[in-house]
Amino acid sequence: MLQGKILVAQGGGPTAVINQSLAGCVIEARKFAGVERVYGASHGVRGIVDEEFLDLTQETTHNLELVAETPCSALGSTREKPDLDYCREIFRVLQAHEISTFFYIGGNDSCDTLRIVSEEAAAADYALRCVHIPKTIDNDLLINDHTPGYPSAARFVACAFAGVNLDNAALPGVYVGVVMGRHAGYLTAASTLGRKYDDDGPHLIYLPERPFTIDAFLDDVKAVHNRLGRCVVAASEGILDPSGEPIAAKLAGGSETDAHGNIQLSGTSSLADLLTGLIRENLQIKRVRGDTLGYLQRSFLGCVSDVDQREAREVGEKAVQFAHWGNSDGSVTIHRTGFYSVEYRLSPLEAVARKTRPMEDAFIAPSGNDVTRDFLLYLRPLLGSGMPDAFRLRPNRVEKILGK
Amino acid sequence: MLQGKILVAQGGGPTAVINQSLAGCVIEARKFAGVERVYGASHGVRGIVDEEFLDLTQETTHNLELVAETPCSALGSTREKPDLDYCREIFRVLQAHEISTFFYIGGNDSCDTLRIVSEEAAAADYALRCVHIPKTIDNDLLINDHTPGYPSAARFVACAFAGVNLDNAALPGVYVGVVMGRHAGYLTAASTLGRKYDDDGPHLIYLPERPFTIDAFLDDVKAVHNRLGRCVVAASEGILDPSGEPIAAKLAGGSETDAHGNIQLSGTSSLADLLTGLIRENLQIKRVRGDTLGYLQRSFLGCVSDVDQREAREVGEKAVQFAHWGNSDGSVTIHRTGFYSVEYRLSPLEAVARKTRPMEDAFIAPSGNDVTRDFLLYLRPLLGSGMPDAFRLRPNRVEKILGK
Repeated sequence: MLQGKILVAQGGGPTAVINQSLAGCVIEARKFAGVERVYGASHGVRGIVDEEFLDLTQETTHNLELVAETPCSALGSTREKPDLDYCREIFRVLQAHEISTFFYIGGNDSCDTLRIVSEEAAAADYALRCVHIPKTIDNDLLINDHTPGYPSAARFVACAFAGVNLDNAALPGVYVGVVMGRHAGYLTAASTLGRKYDDDGPHLIYLPERPFTIDAFLDDVKAVHNRLGRCVVAASEGILDPSGEPIAAKLAGGSETDAHGNIQLSGTSSLADLLTGLIRENLQIKRVRGDTLGYLQRSFLGCVSDVDQREAREVGEKAVQFAHWGNSDGSVTIHRTGFYSVEYRLSPLEAVARKTRPMEDAFIAPSGNDVTRDFLLYLRPLLGSGMPDAFRLRPNRVEKILGK
Repeated sequence: MLQGKILVAQGGGPTAVINQSLAGCVIEARKFAGVERVYGASHGVRGIVDEEFLDLTQETTHNLELVAETPCSALGSTREKPDLDYCREIFRVLQAHEISTFFYIGGNDSCDTLRIVSEEAAAADYALRCVHIPKTIDNDLLINDHTPGYPSAARFVACAFAGVNLDNAALPGVYVGVVMGRHAGYLTAASTLGRKYDDDGPHLIYLPERPFTIDAFLDDVKAVHNRLGRCVVAASEGILDPSGEPIAAKLAGGSETDAHGNIQLSGTSSLADLLTGLIRENLQIKRVRGDTLGYLQRSFLGCVSDVDQREAREVGEKAVQFAHWGNSDGSVTIHRTGFYSVEYRLSPLEAVARKTRPMEDAFIAPSGNDVTRDFLLYLRPLLGSGMPDAFRLRPNRVEKILGK
């Protein structure tokens, strides 16, 4: 039963809808008579350890609704990955503030933090309810059909590639766009939802789930360019060579790594420059351009899926309901029940923590450089309503007179 | 008087609304009884020389309306910059096809092509009406208050920086976003329209109109970072060192140049990497990220200003009306008449051709790294209706117990 003091925090990379989950959690929690206070920690676990709490009981519902529609963690976030000692420190602060329930909105690392804190509380015989609220644009959480944040980022990527495809058709050449997603190809694959006509790009997509070789890449680009006179490529920031080494790391040498030991893949554009350089040097194609889609993918103000918004809201609300009516800690998970509908369950923390899910084989075409129709059916409903559409002139050719 | 065969073409970099001008021109031209055919040239002047024409008289109005809302030149574009011989070849094809009126949608280079073709026609005593329809996201055409395409690109840049500012607030550090615009700072300056609260970024903007020095840049970033614990920078791709050399070129060495002799500034991310590298090496700041906003700025599907749409439509329509009711060649220019309203005039081709307009001094703050209120008032109405807004939680701090 929900009572006393509640704490909510946001961890990891921001998304377009992470504040929907915050609002869903806070507004729902404030409805229960036994709830004294709803605190929000600044910058995730860092704010807990530093006792940097906001009293969200004193925030208006109206402003919470406006914040819900604003992208990026309103409480602030952190990239810190607590070890056992750090988690003990978290628990000590929760105890001191008599927190009864801890909601953490984040990915698999945030879920793992909750798992450890939950174990510490159990060992100390302290009644603490820990509930994980899922979010990640990488769409790589286990058990979940998909994760809040992914659909909006996918919509951005689809609209971006629909646009650069038109640009590339107007001024033909090769265009390479590098997409976020770390070890999972889901976000890169979303670029295919921007296609409409048969010859629309992206014509080639490269995912971390399939080994990337320079020779195959150049052959692919050459074949498309010969056929269409142009080529649009979507490449994941996390593509790997056949030995499993990241292509970006291969190039970058001693790159920055984060607290999770992951190499920094975003905020640098070396991969796009590497790939366009390879094409320029080897294929004698004049106009070759590359972009790294960068932070706009998760933060752009004004590109959001309404399906994503409502689901992010609901996982926050459900987390509170599971905490109140249920008897165990866990992670709220999303399960697809129709075309298109979902339901929410509470899954064990350890089932979601740490591990990541690659893109399913059934979603990747046998060629390895495209998606299947199954993937299009999987993603389309998530993009939400009002997807913009592209149109073209029909060919009514005029006969030549000079006949050049 | 409009009669016989009409030709329309699109040149230079695509914009989000360039097809509004096409639709405005074609639909209006088709209303005149004397008009036999409306042709569209594929890929600008290249398509004229190659006699690659579409008969737009056989396109439905309904589809033209849908194409109007689609970004990027539907007829295709070109970067070719005709010299006198090329223009004579254009004229020869126009003569062969008995074209009476030639509309060219483009920037100052396209206007210059029209100027030369117009002179050739006059010299040959051939009755050819040439009307230039303005477009460029760089906003650098003379005489015009602003140019179609700029408001939508500005809206994209404003929304992008509003988003990365929120991202940077959630995960503090330094963020550098490189913006298009070539020699004009207008598009970079648009990033400031994403600010709302006093401490919102971009905190620093760097424009081609003011000399860029590495020392001043590092001092600026350090000061902001010391004050706010974070810093968002918007830098124009066209920033120059005090001797007038492009910073991007300085770094890039032997870069690709186009037919106009311009260095390739977009489609490579070296400038963002250079600037973030400087900060990392000199300022001991850990989290430093850089993005090059790239082609999304002019092509993203679903980010458009409705004011830009209607004005782009109108300059196309007005071009036809000037051709029908007027007696001279010229360029359709936009003049501001209220807050906010505009009127359209026909200005001489030679007044708009070739030359570019830098950002006005009155729009640049004395510090050189920000805009003035005059600029905010200039740009805001152009962004159109429905601009998304960002909200934040209010501070209601909880007292510390452990007092760490």
